[in-house]
Amino acid sequence: MPNYTAPVEDMMFLFDKLRNNKNYNDLEKYKEVNSELVKDILEEAAKINQNLILPLAKSGDENPTVLENGVVRTPPGYKEAYSKYIEDGWTSLSCDPKYGGQGMPKTVSAFFDEMLSSASLSFKLYSELSIGAYNCISHHATDQIKEKYLPKMVEGKWSGTMCLTEPVCGTDLGLLKTKAIEQSDGTFKLSGQKIFITSGDQDLTENIIHLVIARVADSPAGTKGISLFLVPKFVVNEDGSIGARNGVSTGSIESKMGIKGSATCVLNFDDATGYMIGLKNKGLNAMFTMMNLERIVVGIQGLGISEIAYQNSLSYAKERKQGKTNNTKSTNGADFIIEHADIRKSLLNMKSIIEGERALCFWLSQQTEVSLYHPDEKIKQEASDLVSLMTPVVKTMFSDMGMEITSEAMQVHGGYGYTKDQGIEQLYRDNRITPIYEGTNSIQAADLVFRKLVNKNGDIIDKYLELIKNDCSTENEKLKPFIKELKTHLEILSTFTVWIKEKVQNSKDDASAACNDYLKALGFVSIAHAWIKVLEVSFKDYEQNKEFYEDKIQTANFYFKRVLPRAESHFKTATSGSDYIMNFKFS
Amino acid sequence: MPNYTAPVEDMMFLFDKLRNNKNYNDLEKYKEVNSELVKDILEEAAKINQNLILPLAKSGDENPTVLENGVVRTPPGYKEAYSKYIEDGWTSLSCDPKYGGQGMPKTVSAFFDEMLSSASLSFKLYSELSIGAYNCISHHATDQIKEKYLPKMVEGKWSGTMCLTEPVCGTDLGLLKTKAIEQSDGTFKLSGQKIFITSGDQDLTENIIHLVIARVADSPAGTKGISLFLVPKFVVNEDGSIGARNGVSTGSIESKMGIKGSATCVLNFDDATGYMIGLKNKGLNAMFTMMNLERIVVGIQGLGISEIAYQNSLSYAKERKQGKTNNTKSTNGADFIIEHADIRKSLLNMKSIIEGERALCFWLSQQTEVSLYHPDEKIKQEASDLVSLMTPVVKTMFSDMGMEITSEAMQVHGGYGYTKDQGIEQLYRDNRITPIYEGTNSIQAADLVFRKLVNKNGDIIDKYLELIKNDCSTENEKLKPFIKELKTHLEILSTFTVWIKEKVQNSKDDASAACNDYLKALGFVSIAHAWIKVLEVSFKDYEQNKEFYEDKIQTANFYFKRVLPRAESHFKTATSGSDYIMNFKFS
Repeated sequence: MPNYTAPVEDMMFLFDKLRNNKNYNDLEKYKEVNSELVKDILEEAAKINQNLILPLAKSGDENPTVLENGVVRTPPGYKEAYSKYIEDGWTSLSCDPKYGGQGMPKTVSAFFDEMLSSASLSFKLYSELSIGAYNCISHHATDQIKEKYLPKMVEGKWSGTMCLTEPVCGTDLGLLKTKAIEQSDGTFKLSGQKIFITSGDQDLTENIIHLVIARVADSPAGTKGISLFLVPKFVVNEDGSIGARNGVSTGSIESKMGIKGSATCVLNFDDATGYMIGLKNKGLNAMFTMMNLERIVVGIQGLGISEIAYQNSLSYAKERKQGKTNNTKSTNGADFIIEHADIRKSLLNMKSIIEGERALCFWLSQQTEVSLYHPDEKIKQEASDLVSLMTPVVKTMFSDMGMEITSEAMQVHGGYGYTKDQGIEQLYRDNRITPIYEGTNSIQAADLVFRKLVNKNGDIIDKYLELIKNDCSTENEKLKPFIKELKTHLEILSTFTVWIKEKVQNSKDDASAACNDYLKALGFVSIAHAWIKVLEVSFKDYEQNKEFYEDKIQTANFYFKRVLPRAESHFKTATSGSDYIMNFKFS
Repeated sequence: MPNYTAPVEDMMFLFDKLRNNKNYNDLEKYKEVNSELVKDILEEAAKINQNLILPLAKSGDENPTVLENGVVRTPPGYKEAYSKYIEDGWTSLSCDPKYGGQGMPKTVSAFFDEMLSSASLSFKLYSELSIGAYNCISHHATDQIKEKYLPKMVEGKWSGTMCLTEPVCGTDLGLLKTKAIEQSDGTFKLSGQKIFITSGDQDLTENIIHLVIARVADSPAGTKGISLFLVPKFVVNEDGSIGARNGVSTGSIESKMGIKGSATCVLNFDDATGYMIGLKNKGLNAMFTMMNLERIVVGIQGLGISEIAYQNSLSYAKERKQGKTNNTKSTNGADFIIEHADIRKSLLNMKSIIEGERALCFWLSQQTEVSLYHPDEKIKQEASDLVSLMTPVVKTMFSDMGMEITSEAMQVHGGYGYTKDQGIEQLYRDNRITPIYEGTNSIQAADLVFRKLVNKNGDIIDKYLELIKNDCSTENEKLKPFIKELKTHLEILSTFTVWIKEKVQNSKDDASAACNDYLKALGFVSIAHAWIKVLEVSFKDYEQNKEFYEDKIQTANFYFKRVLPRAESHFKTATSGSDYIMNFKFS
């Protein structure tokens, strides 16, 4: 089983030194969320993840969730752990105090999401979708519904799901077939089948609140006829007590390559009672509020799995002896593999990507809070546009880099990485879902290029590139070489951006064939930008904590020398057009 | 379960049109191996792989090999299939007719290896190591031993293994602890433990012939004290009949991420009777003959798995509708995903790498035959040097590209790629062993850079680059743009080569930290070179088979535009030195 120590020091460094978004700092509601409080939370979070949750990873992989006589049974230990988890209030971390939550900002809850992803992604998924459903309900439902459902969800006694996908529609929700028929009392009866529903059923909570998209009988075809419904597993009585079983049943659960402790369900809705959330035919808009936040969390999952993969690779490399290095002083026997240049390079690749991602994510968490809560509508909108822009980037980069990092971890472990004992192969399998679910990474790239670069509020990508450019000047001699590299790649990215915006207008296929590469180029530059902010502090406060900051500077140095230059290759290959791709005749 | 149709047409194209190595064509022993014969063989091979072997893949994954009361049981169906497989003579394909073999060259047997890898890698491994052991015995053993063991191995009634790895030594064989004590009759008693032994035990054959490296009691430490021994599972009597059980037992079998139908064994040798093969203390040399050929086959495994992953992605993309394309004419509903630029790009990426690899492999098969059998020692040595150079390249590129391709296949399938039904995730898991076993890809890269570029026979890499350069001129206007791209990247590779050869002499850490990237750059250029040879024929014979050759030209076009340029990125990042890597202080 892999070991895990939550990276509290790095998280607190970000919280203390890089919480520098003026608009975030203006938010009244977080004035009291200070360093001491956050440190206490993260230390408690570290304990529960390291001690209680981590062992569930192996348990879930060896004893996958099963469906027995229509009932989903989670793996051994999940129930007990979940009880303790909600008793300690972890489901309520980011929720509104009005419903019993602790009201913590994303700048804190994102760290918790990362830790929980490191410890056990399967276990995490049981509460993760609840938070998604909570967010959706709290933004779009009536007060009556909020008061009825949210306190139990915040407490973790009830959970939530997001029911979108159907057999013929994953990416393409306009094709959905689930029907909703209005009843005389204003409720609806839903019928249809939903597939790939994460935590669609389980034995951890007393009730499950499904958020379901469906088409009302008289609604138009396509995405413009989709409404959103709340469909509880058990109907909830007026007094809030649990009533009769609703018409929702689990048809089957998926057998998957990884996240075997998570129940991925086929749900059948047969005249199930549902309540409309938000406006009729505006269901997708409501759902996307929740989808976008959820997509960032999927990126964080990739980050969390990367972190535990790195930690175990590092400790293995320090313990395993094999081969002599170029500089060996030993006359016999072998050296620790951490002395080999090639292994060191792998480890630094992992570390420099992980820490850069964490810093980028922290920046995005501040933006997210501003986008949700800032009183000034203009500031709020600008933050929201940046969050929308960066959501597909974070989801895709972090999940893809998670595959690169877990794969490197396997190579560091050699044959022991491929066998079950060390648990490394499980990290690789578990992470492999992250580039697929919540919209495949190709869909994310298309979303970025066709919908996020420029939107009704303006040229968002230009604002973002300008923001990076403004950070590209310094008087600090030590920072200059890093700035120079960033500038070089920012120019490449800018050229790429001009090219792709033009193609979006005039040659959509060229843009489509280039959008994955564009996303990667943007991702590598964004992480470099996050590193620059880390470096500014590292040089400025160097004397305060030499060891820590020297580590940051050297890690960044690797990123700028070996990782960032990949952006250029994406630019070069992607801008070769698409005629030869579109005209190809597949036999 | 994935479908599979053996790519006989492409294989016959290579055999008919690219069997152009003069030295290979001079080999007397293959004069009769003509197009008709090979076509017959490949068509029979296609049948057995498509019909008999393919279903074993799923069976082996769902019912992994088990160890029961000391006996290894292969998955359901393996025994019956193996009987038919040896009855039809497939184990004897490339073996010497003197021992009952069919004497087919690598130009044919490599195609069979590819098909079998596509159908079921786990099943393949039971006979693959036998061929390795056969090769080793036939090159290094006495006539007496050859006559006693080889006919049964060729027939497939007995199998063979390669026993190298021990708990503390995988990469670093000098550390091995297995002891061999000489007996008065000239035999040896071996004691020790070997791990990760593929097909170390099974219930398919009457006997298993282990080739074991061990240290004779009075031999020196390190790699210079290693000898090679033949250790049968059952001692073979003078008359060739099977005698008493030898002191070899299976301690356990590994539980692995993939290739679950293959038995990966811990073997315990307790005073097991063994016979020395080759010279005392020269065991590693003898073993490496077999290791090198085996490493090429691992590359071919990656190619075979890539092919079946591509075929299924292509057919899925033609069946699955999702989303509207940029050029859609449908006013409602979705288009087939094969119409999406991004999916097409993925498919062409797979196809252009696969077909390029197959062509490169065919070139290498001819060189291998020349290196083994050409009567002129100089020609033989030159071919041998080229094969040695390209062995780590083929092993690493094809296995790594196999991961890229099976991963793209999973993305094309979306959620259905991550669940078990379609069998795509199994291809991804099965292929993941190929970058690890027979020497991890990092070891391959170090082998290439430190031992293969320049050896005692001269500057091998320069000869190879010269060979490519000589193909970089043409009068054909249509070929010129391809040649131009190849030249550009050959120049980059040449600069990289000068750099790395200098570093091998003067700054070994810089070379170590760059060798993975160097291998990739060389690999991408080698595949491009193989494509040039394919293109020459395609333009020349275009009118003979327009559809086939147009497909080749367009596929090559994708390779040169989108794949080959990656070589440059490897060059740029790798040549940034290693000081900052070696001096990094890991906490």
